[in-house]
Amino acid sequence: MGIEAEKRLAAEAAAALVEDGMRVGLGTGSTVAFLLEALAARSLDLRCVATSPRTEEAARALGLAVEPFESFDRLDLAIDGADQIAPDGWLVKGGGAAHTREKIVAAAADRFVVIASSDKPVDRIEPPIPLELMEFGLPATLRALEPTTLRDVPRSPDGGVIADYRGSVEDPEATAARLAATPGVVAHGLFPPSLVYEILVARGDRVQRLVPPG
Amino acid sequence: MGIEAEKRLAAEAAAALVEDGMRVGLGTGSTVAFLLEALAARSLDLRCVATSPRTEEAARALGLAVEPFESFDRLDLAIDGADQIAPDGWLVKGGGAAHTREKIVAAAADRFVVIASSDKPVDRIEPPIPLELMEFGLPATLRALEPTTLRDVPRSPDGGVIADYRGSVEDPEATAARLAATPGVVAHGLFPPSLVYEILVARGDRVQRLVPPG
Repeated sequence: MGIEAEKRLAAEAAAALVEDGMRVGLGTGSTVAFLLEALAARSLDLRCVATSPRTEEAARALGLAVEPFESFDRLDLAIDGADQIAPDGWLVKGGGAAHTREKIVAAAADRFVVIASSDKPVDRIEPPIPLELMEFGLPATLRALEPTTLRDVPRSPDGGVIADYRGSVEDPEATAARLAATPGVVAHGLFPPSLVYEILVARGDRVQRLVPPG
Repeated sequence: MGIEAEKRLAAEAAAALVEDGMRVGLGTGSTVAFLLEALAARSLDLRCVATSPRTEEAARALGLAVEPFESFDRLDLAIDGADQIAPDGWLVKGGGAAHTREKIVAAAADRFVVIASSDKPVDRIEPPIPLELMEFGLPATLRALEPTTLRDVPRSPDGGVIADYRGSVEDPEATAARLAATPGVVAHGLFPPSLVYEILVARGDRVQRLVPPG
């Protein structure tokens, strides 16, 4: 089976976790595209929140009810992909430049479930780490975060500038703390294991379930 | 001497640090208002960056040249007030809702100088700690940060929502790390001693100079 089939398999496994009446956070990306199809096929009565305009549009087109995230202070479940999954449960997200909203949605969910094909688990986190930066003082912020490169994409939906931190990430916890503490950084793409409820990784025709330690 | 006279005295001491040709970051607030007057009176050739529309307007009205902060990646000096100054050099800023830009400017400066009247040093940091939060997912972010209250002020110039964290701040470093790591928090008003070059506190007719340890 190929990567696309694995993405679909993981997405379908996650869709099976969704129950009628749930408030559900919808991630962003190619694996989530399969999730939206699988969710729509179940015809449940859901209230959804989207992590990007792209997901909102795709979900609505499939008939899923998407509400602004100002409607809830808690979600039952959030489901999203990841760009890198480390053995200890650290994730890198934001290849699609949606990581700021993705992290807010993940943190708001009682259960944050990650779905991935077999190419996403890595032995250890490697750069780049996606960033969202404030326009104000951008040259100074980039200097403080060297080596960091700007990405040639439109602003985030919240007005931030998307960039990639290309320095060493030997200790994800230390890197996450440093990035979070740097003035001008709105959000970064390192997701700690404490945010993650479970990770569903499809390998061939099987779905492996990983639960981050702690 | 009263508090207003102390503010003026500290501001004048800081203005004396400014030299011709410097790139200078201008803070926000009532003590900075005296700084702007003292700086303008010196008629130096400066390139200034402002931390708020209010400061920008006041500086321009006094004849100071204010540029967008996209023009520089480094400042020679930044000068700003503070709401609380702890003995170990931790600051609380943001009573004026300008703390996000203030922290970016402070971090970009080779020397960040704090100016204050004698009522600003405290035995230890107390809540509230000003926050700037993203609109997206605001109810969930407020729940994660309980007890936090929204402030009845307009948005920040960068579009964020101003709030105050009212939980315990017994360990400022731990609180700063927790606030920075909370998804949806754009910035918080705890400034670490590592940002601060020196603190000029006016007491009566004398200016006391404090240098944070480390």
